[in-house]
Amino acid sequence: MKAPSFQSSYPETTRHCYGCGELNTQGLHIQSYWDGEETICRFDPAPHHIAVPGYVYGGLIASIIDCHGTGSATAAAYRESGRELGSEPPLRYVTGSLHVDYLKPTPLGVTLTARGVIHEVRGRVVVVRISLSAESVVCATGEVVAVRMPDEWLASLTDSGSG
Amino acid sequence: MKAPSFQSSYPETTRHCYGCGELNTQGLHIQSYWDGEETICRFDPAPHHIAVPGYVYGGLIASIIDCHGTGSATAAAYRESGRELGSEPPLRYVTGSLHVDYLKPTPLGVTLTARGVIHEVRGRVVVVRISLSAESVVCATGEVVAVRMPDEWLASLTDSGSG
Repeated sequence: MKAPSFQSSYPETTRHCYGCGELNTQGLHIQSYWDGEETICRFDPAPHHIAVPGYVYGGLIASIIDCHGTGSATAAAYRESGRELGSEPPLRYVTGSLHVDYLKPTPLGVTLTARGVIHEVRGRVVVVRISLSAESVVCATGEVVAVRMPDEWLASLTDSGSG
Repeated sequence: MKAPSFQSSYPETTRHCYGCGELNTQGLHIQSYWDGEETICRFDPAPHHIAVPGYVYGGLIASIIDCHGTGSATAAAYRESGRELGSEPPLRYVTGSLHVDYLKPTPLGVTLTARGVIHEVRGRVVVVRISLSAESVVCATGEVVAVRMPDEWLASLTDSGSG
C-alpha cells in the first residue's frame, strides 16, 4: 500500500495551495513522499507549462521545488519529533526563501523527478536541498528554507479557500 | 499611448511562455514595462492562486519575479546597446538562477506590483533585483540572474509551441 503524500496529511484549512493542495481543483497537485532518507516528487508538466518550444517553464520548476521543499520540511519535522505524519498538533511549513539554479533546459513531455535531502532542522526552520531531473539528467537544483507556520496563524485560518 | 510590454517584443517563437507568453492561451500573461530607470509589472492573481486562505501562492510570486526579471534583462540589454526594444537580431534572456525571499504573507485579492532594478549588465548576463509589493507593502524580494539565449538555440526554435 502506497503511503499517503506529505501534502495529504496537511490540516484541511491548508490544503488549498495552488501548487500542492488536494482541494484546489485548478492546482498542480504536487505530491511528495519519503524514499528512504530522501524525499521524492514526480510531476508531469502539461503542454501549456512551456518556456520556449520543447522546454519546461522555469516558474513551474520553482513551484515544484517550493512545494516539494515545504512538504519535505513538514515530513522531516514530524520525523525529527518522533511523531506520525499529520498527527495533532499540526506542523505546517511555509517558504521563507527559495533558490533555484537552472543548470540546463528541462525537456517538456517527460516525467520530472524532484529529490529532496533534509539539510538542516533547526528550531522552526528546515532547510531542504532539491535536485530536479528529467530522464536521469539533473536540470535544476534548489534550496528551500522552510519556516514553521505560527500556531496562531494556523489556528486563525478558516476553510474559505478557493479552488 | 502606452508602450508595448517587453514580452510583446520577443521573437514569435519565444512568445509561448506559460508565465509571460502572449501566445499561451492558458498562461499568466505577465507583462513588464519601463518606469523611469526601474521596470514595473502589475499582476492580479486569480482566486485559485492561493497558498493558504487569504494569501498568494509563493510559486506564483516566484513566477512573477522570474518573468519580470528576464523581461527586464532583455529591455536592459537593448538599452545598454543603444538599440530599440525588439529590433533584430533578437536579444532574449532565460533564467540562470532565481532567488526569492518571502518577507511576509502576500494578500490575495489585490493587485501586486513588482519593481525591478537593473543591478548589473555583464557580457551575456544581466542581474535584476525585484521587490514585490501589495498595497505598498513589500511582501517579497528577489534576484534573477538572466543569461542571454545562445543565438543557435534561438534560431533552432520552431513555432510549434503549445498554448
